[in-house]
Amino acid sequence: MKEFDLIKIVERLFGNEDVITPAGKHDAAYVKIGNRLVVLTCDTVNEISDFPPYMLPEEMGWMAIAVTLSDIAACGAKPLYFLSSISLKSTEYFEEILKGMKKVADRYGIKIVGGDIDFSEVTTIAGFAIGEAKRHITRKGARGGENVFITDLPGKAQLCLEMLENGAKRDELPYAEKLYTPVPRIEEGMRIARYASSMTDVSDSLAVSLHQISQSSNVKIVIDNIDLSHLSGARKPLELFLYGGGDFELVYTAKSSEDGIRIGRVEKGGGVFAEFNGKTFEVEFRGYSHF
Amino acid sequence: MKEFDLIKIVERLFGNEDVITPAGKHDAAYVKIGNRLVVLTCDTVNEISDFPPYMLPEEMGWMAIAVTLSDIAACGAKPLYFLSSISLKSTEYFEEILKGMKKVADRYGIKIVGGDIDFSEVTTIAGFAIGEAKRHITRKGARGGENVFITDLPGKAQLCLEMLENGAKRDELPYAEKLYTPVPRIEEGMRIARYASSMTDVSDSLAVSLHQISQSSNVKIVIDNIDLSHLSGARKPLELFLYGGGDFELVYTAKSSEDGIRIGRVEKGGGVFAEFNGKTFEVEFRGYSHF
Repeated sequence: MKEFDLIKIVERLFGNEDVITPAGKHDAAYVKIGNRLVVLTCDTVNEISDFPPYMLPEEMGWMAIAVTLSDIAACGAKPLYFLSSISLKSTEYFEEILKGMKKVADRYGIKIVGGDIDFSEVTTIAGFAIGEAKRHITRKGARGGENVFITDLPGKAQLCLEMLENGAKRDELPYAEKLYTPVPRIEEGMRIARYASSMTDVSDSLAVSLHQISQSSNVKIVIDNIDLSHLSGARKPLELFLYGGGDFELVYTAKSSEDGIRIGRVEKGGGVFAEFNGKTFEVEFRGYSHF
Repeated sequence: MKEFDLIKIVERLFGNEDVITPAGKHDAAYVKIGNRLVVLTCDTVNEISDFPPYMLPEEMGWMAIAVTLSDIAACGAKPLYFLSSISLKSTEYFEEILKGMKKVADRYGIKIVGGDIDFSEVTTIAGFAIGEAKRHITRKGARGGENVFITDLPGKAQLCLEMLENGAKRDELPYAEKLYTPVPRIEEGMRIARYASSMTDVSDSLAVSLHQISQSSNVKIVIDNIDLSHLSGARKPLELFLYGGGDFELVYTAKSSEDGIRIGRVEKGGGVFAEFNGKTFEVEFRGYSHF
């Protein structure tokens, strides 16, 4: 089974919960607590699937909180609280992992209020974040005539991963910070949520994110002829740009925007297409899969 | 390092967060969202530390949500939402795990609103629960002259684990449901929170829970001469009663109570003691440790 088949099982079992946005429909769930619009999300990283070579323990903690907060950013919400369940082989790096979390939390004024420690043979950090949103923004809402924007051109993390696989050392990577200390786009997300019609984060790939917006909004998305010189070191820049994972940028639709780079347009219809070097082709629904 | 040393690191790094009850001080954190008193907690179970032999995939999901909700119960709060991060070796049992979660969620009217799936060599389920409390109750607040109560006499889960280790089959266990499908004491917790002076859950051991109440409240606790016939199958019933883990009962202090069994009394002073068969001895601070 692929990851998206698993999500279908989740939607079948839990897709009808009486909440504003249930599981599987967006990066985080929207619920009401009192009169507040609250977003809830969790995300897990582990050393098998997620930690690149040369990653320091402090960066494992950093990554765990950053990827979880990226889901909160994709709701344009302000993150408030963070908890984590940490499973370790040994307690040696425990404090370093927490210090990495604290760096990200302090940067955004988030309070770390709880956690849990367990023994495991695979170092695993599950993060849980809770935030408050002013507005309900999801992948649904894009309309023909709008443009597609992203907070930074994707493919950089995947390029670094490829270089590591080909024997590069950490200090030879052009975008090491994208891989080791990704930054959740929290301030950007809060600004973008005021005017964008749809938004999501790019964790699996740009292609997956755009397909999700296209399907949720019933629109056609066309990626324009984007300059890929930021991926000039890659064997296949277009492959990394469309299908590479791990960037944690926000992709969104709006008439205009100064918070991101324009990469395409929204039209009536369906599907995701790209125009590169005068040729138009359909973008596949694929990206990084955990299975 | 022992688990309690790890908690000291957590308290040093995060114990001063400006919230009502920060990490490490209670089973769950208390925070304010709008005008609501909200409790947040997370708990992880994995096949190395937590799943007993013969456990079915559905019971793994059941256990994951039940142990997390036990922390919410220890706040006397009403659980509202649940999310989980599931790390699997293969996707084969994914749906069964979710069905087990759904059984517990449906029983208590909890909405499962999100989750995350990852690959790992060790099946791991991290649960995250959010609830709403009417009152702030923690391990602090016990006073001399009160009594100590528990929702059910402990040691039953540990007795079953011992029997399994000695070659017993699942259908020979006297309290299999305590081990495979533990029930969070949610309704009891909500009732008890109205009148109790302190409360916590017994996950590591009765001894650990009573020491935590004793230290937080600055009181002496004396366990009375309790009938241990529920552990008559054990080699060392008193050891299981005091130091066995995995029961997920609520232990609390109050003048009187009809929601639990009286097991002792609160006095001025400090420390935890027990009177059995006419002898008084000091109860050690130990229980199940993940490391």
